[in-house]
Amino acid sequence: MSKAVTLLSGGMDSATCLAIAIEEGNDCYALSFDYGQRHDVELGAARRIAAHMGVLEHRILNIDLGQLGGSALTDGSIDVPEQPGEGIPVTYVPARNTIFLSYALAWAEVLEADSIYLGINAIDYSGYPDCRPEYLEAYQRMATLATRRGIEGARLDIRAPLLDSGKAEIVRRGVALGVDFSLTISCYQADAQGAACGRCDACRLRRAGFEAAGVDDPTRYRT
Amino acid sequence: MSKAVTLLSGGMDSATCLAIAIEEGNDCYALSFDYGQRHDVELGAARRIAAHMGVLEHRILNIDLGQLGGSALTDGSIDVPEQPGEGIPVTYVPARNTIFLSYALAWAEVLEADSIYLGINAIDYSGYPDCRPEYLEAYQRMATLATRRGIEGARLDIRAPLLDSGKAEIVRRGVALGVDFSLTISCYQADAQGAACGRCDACRLRRAGFEAAGVDDPTRYRT
Repeated sequence: MSKAVTLLSGGMDSATCLAIAIEEGNDCYALSFDYGQRHDVELGAARRIAAHMGVLEHRILNIDLGQLGGSALTDGSIDVPEQPGEGIPVTYVPARNTIFLSYALAWAEVLEADSIYLGINAIDYSGYPDCRPEYLEAYQRMATLATRRGIEGARLDIRAPLLDSGKAEIVRRGVALGVDFSLTISCYQADAQGAACGRCDACRLRRAGFEAAGVDDPTRYRT
Repeated sequence: MSKAVTLLSGGMDSATCLAIAIEEGNDCYALSFDYGQRHDVELGAARRIAAHMGVLEHRILNIDLGQLGGSALTDGSIDVPEQPGEGIPVTYVPARNTIFLSYALAWAEVLEADSIYLGINAIDYSGYPDCRPEYLEAYQRMATLATRRGIEGARLDIRAPLLDSGKAEIVRRGVALGVDFSLTISCYQADAQGAACGRCDACRLRRAGFEAAGVDDPTRYRT
């Protein structure tokens, strides 16, 4: 068996990505972050998904990105937008994926893992710079040079199997792999019981995806 | 004035690097990490250097890399070698520079800084993969794509002005810029009073550098 570190946020994309990593024959080590996100209810979702899908280990690292500021997701004084806007939204967290991947890289190196999986996609997404294919390619190149494994000529694959998938396709793929979407939470401002606002970008993209796939969304929406 | 985030470990290289960033006309924001290093006495050195050199702000982020393990610097059960060895030494911390730079990238994005300075060098160094020029080039490319600034076509420079310098040259450059090397600590196992072991890789490289430069090393060595 090959080993994979899989980033797991608790949302539908990362849950589907984990299912793919398992399907592809990996022993999976799930990695989540308590990064000061306002929607930390997603960490409970991540825990339940990890347990349900039988990962070998699930770690939640505490890294307070809120102390650096700059995002509606980590700064309670900036509202989460409830209408689509122009450009990169205020929910963008500076360098978040770069930081997450860097911890995954460290853990992969310690575990001697062969790959890192992450559930980013660049179709039905919020326009974050660190979700684009060209970013990921550059990260792969950097990661290959960054580590012991790289010096020894081996490769650590950074795999984003959903990169080119729209949300409807992710829903269908998840259903086919038996993902229990009722365990997942996408909303940026879900309440403590996991009920979603139905209005933020993450809710809008999720709802539209399930609708386009013709699958019932098990999310409890407040509106 | 342009703004720069400067990584500051408390050692001689990062102190000299900060002096260069200031000399090059930057308003400097120093960033240090409490990462579970056994030689956390270096953080006191970082504080004194930051204050002495008049940075605009100095942040010490608490990121416990010890929980991922894999290094003599973060795992008390692995001894720091006191003889030169072959290959990448056990003092290598998996993905450390990648993680440090990623936080610097996040802070630079929030501050709208123009550059990040780091004091790595690839001449008199310990053979860590993430200190090599090809690694840094790849990081630069990734960083340009990772951020809001990159999408907008602007550049965030990752500057490693000591990359091609030997230790003696760093000493001479630091002296010319007025760096107070008595404030810096290089040793991997300095005691609480800042006295250095004189035997680890970091001590050996430092001692040889001062000697070759013909400058008195103000370090108090235990041996």
